Amino acid sequence: MDLKKLKSWFKANEKKIEEDFFTFLRFSSISTEPKHKEDVLSCANWVFDYVRSLDFQTELIQTPSHPLIFAQNLQAGKDAKTLIIYGHYDVQPIDPISEWKSDPFEPKKIGSTIYARGASDNKGQLMYTLVALKAYLQENKSFPVNIKLCIEGEEEAGSAGLSKILPSIKEKMQGDYLLVPDMDIPEKDTPAITLGVRGILPFEVELVGSNSDLHSGSHGGIAYNPNRALIELLAKVWDEKGRVQIPGFYDDVQDLEDSEQLEMTFDHEKYSKEFGVEAFSGESGYSSIESNWVRPTFEINGISGGYTGDGFKTVIPAKAAAKISCRLVSCQDPKKIAAAIEAFLRKNAQMGMKIEIKFHEGSSAVRGAIDSKLAISCRDAYEEVFSKKASNILSGGSIPIMTELVKISGADIILMGVALPTDNIHAPNEHFCMKRFKQGFLVMVKTIENLSK
Amino acid sequence: MDLKKLKSWFKANEKKIEEDFFTFLRFSSISTEPKHKEDVLSCANWVFDYVRSLDFQTELIQTPSHPLIFAQNLQAGKDAKTLIIYGHYDVQPIDPISEWKSDPFEPKKIGSTIYARGASDNKGQLMYTLVALKAYLQENKSFPVNIKLCIEGEEEAGSAGLSKILPSIKEKMQGDYLLVPDMDIPEKDTPAITLGVRGILPFEVELVGSNSDLHSGSHGGIAYNPNRALIELLAKVWDEKGRVQIPGFYDDVQDLEDSEQLEMTFDHEKYSKEFGVEAFSGESGYSSIESNWVRPTFEINGISGGYTGDGFKTVIPAKAAAKISCRLVSCQDPKKIAAAIEAFLRKNAQMGMKIEIKFHEGSSAVRGAIDSKLAISCRDAYEEVFSKKASNILSGGSIPIMTELVKISGADIILMGVALPTDNIHAPNEHFCMKRFKQGFLVMVKTIENLSK
Repeated sequence: MDLKKLKSWFKANEKKIEEDFFTFLRFSSISTEPKHKEDVLSCANWVFDYVRSLDFQTELIQTPSHPLIFAQNLQAGKDAKTLIIYGHYDVQPIDPISEWKSDPFEPKKIGSTIYARGASDNKGQLMYTLVALKAYLQENKSFPVNIKLCIEGEEEAGSAGLSKILPSIKEKMQGDYLLVPDMDIPEKDTPAITLGVRGILPFEVELVGSNSDLHSGSHGGIAYNPNRALIELLAKVWDEKGRVQIPGFYDDVQDLEDSEQLEMTFDHEKYSKEFGVEAFSGESGYSSIESNWVRPTFEINGISGGYTGDGFKTVIPAKAAAKISCRLVSCQDPKKIAAAIEAFLRKNAQMGMKIEIKFHEGSSAVRGAIDSKLAISCRDAYEEVFSKKASNILSGGSIPIMTELVKISGADIILMGVALPTDNIHAPNEHFCMKRFKQGFLVMVKTIENLSK
Repeated sequence: MDLKKLKSWFKANEKKIEEDFFTFLRFSSISTEPKHKEDVLSCANWVFDYVRSLDFQTELIQTPSHPLIFAQNLQAGKDAKTLIIYGHYDVQPIDPISEWKSDPFEPKKIGSTIYARGASDNKGQLMYTLVALKAYLQENKSFPVNIKLCIEGEEEAGSAGLSKILPSIKEKMQGDYLLVPDMDIPEKDTPAITLGVRGILPFEVELVGSNSDLHSGSHGGIAYNPNRALIELLAKVWDEKGRVQIPGFYDDVQDLEDSEQLEMTFDHEKYSKEFGVEAFSGESGYSSIESNWVRPTFEINGISGGYTGDGFKTVIPAKAAAKISCRLVSCQDPKKIAAAIEAFLRKNAQMGMKIEIKFHEGSSAVRGAIDSKLAISCRDAYEEVFSKKASNILSGGSIPIMTELVKISGADIILMGVALPTDNIHAPNEHFCMKRFKQGFLVMVKTIENLSK
């Protein structure tokens, strides 16, 4: 298919595409917050209807949490290869809500940019994928490969639901290629395919020091403050070189392989300017990009204890808690790492403090081959659309379900996308530019086409 | 006045006393929360009306924040001594609200115990004080000393308003004795007067690492997490012996003087049982009670950063913050300590992190003489009411305005009260027993009477 023709198709359909996209963005499909369960379901139904309106045999499959949309078009026949495309219709929470400049669930277009929760991650990238399938079918009547869509509603909360039902739909999930349009390109004119993502291990730790909040005058100097116990405990995690001190943490971390020809440039000055960051983490001896791609992390995503409202309340709180997630790399096994973390925290917690540790479902890192048919097709598509050599990168992020999806499908995986590091995903004022939406659309059509070459 | 007669008076008036007390408790006079400004004002007006209905010349004096009720009865004449009684009608915030078993502003009586925010601190103790004045006047027609009442609405938020206007009402505030019914007795049958309180220095520290929350996958290993920077910074405050490492922190801390004959018993087992505390703080080399009474503390009253709602949000937050208060002792000067803390925090904060430190009004410790007329009168009153020797104690708490009140009034100070450490002040399910209310009433009447002996 000619790029020019594809661009014309997009232009002719642009109004409708944007209308549908806005409708999709209006669902407050926050999977992690129980109060949004109905919104997630409404969103699932909308995606189901949309996919069904294409020429796909579509199912809404219940899971213990949010439903999965599974759809397939197998007209290419038994001898043709099968491409699985993965996406998710759920989004991250919206707080701190006060920092949004517009309603996160009422998309606002400024210039070519659309502001809304999920505009980039993953509704934007999923939407151009679906539009690409629509265009392909309208222009070609059929796909050159069988296509299966796996669109879940719980990626942002760890995919426990999909994970639970995967074994029961193993047959359906068989495929040759697994394409995941949920990634960044390094800059808007810099094409790249993503060979892999890190794993993740989220957990919560809570220290309880008393039955009830205590007056910090009457009890100060007597009762140990759980806030203090928590910060002292967590401060023990790193040494002064930024190395995690949990015994066994790095046991299964491997060095980078040159054969992957990774593009590892990183511009600290530009990064500082974009994000306002002037304090850098990472371990000494590793570059920022290595620390992000091939080294594990221990991040305190949330910490809370005591009074944090207006003014002051002089309490020794009954408890203090932290939500933490580790990003995992190479062969690190989430279960093994969880055991190491638990042992470390229990050993180092202040004597007499009650400690509760709760691990959520973890996932190990995933890596695709640089020379698979899918990798080549996708890289070629980027190069054609961007008229520029595409590089191979990794992502510091995680898509927890990928480990299982790769295993159960038997497919070669490649991750792609046209999001930017500055899209504010997971943050206030998330946005996505319709120019990149169109690029993503073109890359998706071309990748599918290239798979048959 | 005969104790028996006083008890009869109380019994005859008990229904009305309780009705008034309940009305007083229903005002949600949380001084630290701007949204309750009107409630604080309504409460002030109620106190004003109540005091005026006694034989007091009463004024509602505006301050930059919440109003002061100042009232005087000078019928004892110019040659008589003057007693100032201090109290406050504001209360602490109510969160964590989910842990209250009944509405904090709808008093609930179970047995003899009344549950409500402020039931003990300070509405309960202020109420029996006002009832004692009423009874005294009804039975004796006049007081043996001049009495001035100073009832403020901002004690729980640092008394900035009263502090501001104190110099302008200096004339009014002159007195010989300053009595502060805002204290505990060690146990319900153990009478004690409180010779002093610690000072306090509240402040906030915030670390800012980026313009916006960042995705902990895309940025983890690159951007330094403000939660981590904050816990690492605050963990440097103590050494392994529990000693604060801020240079100069202990410079003006003096050793305990034997002459005060302080009752320093402390039952760890009983304390653990009452409060569920099994982790103890304090410096090695000091007992728990010494650490609470005569050693300074550094307490993290609140800490917050990142996502702390349901589920997970894998962010590196833009910022992390802590609300901290130090309790001060001996000659520690809040301004000097603030400078030492600021220097320490700035010096030790992670490089590149923006740090903001905001100090609130501080106060130094206050100590009354063991042998003043007021101390003797009050101690004798306790011994008569409780039929037991009264001891001398200190309080680990603070009443920030006391430093200035003592200075400006020229009065001898003694603190008293019949609250218990288990009243849950500043915590959910605060309560006060009407049996102790009555004891407080009796001690107050007797103290006033003793002053003329």
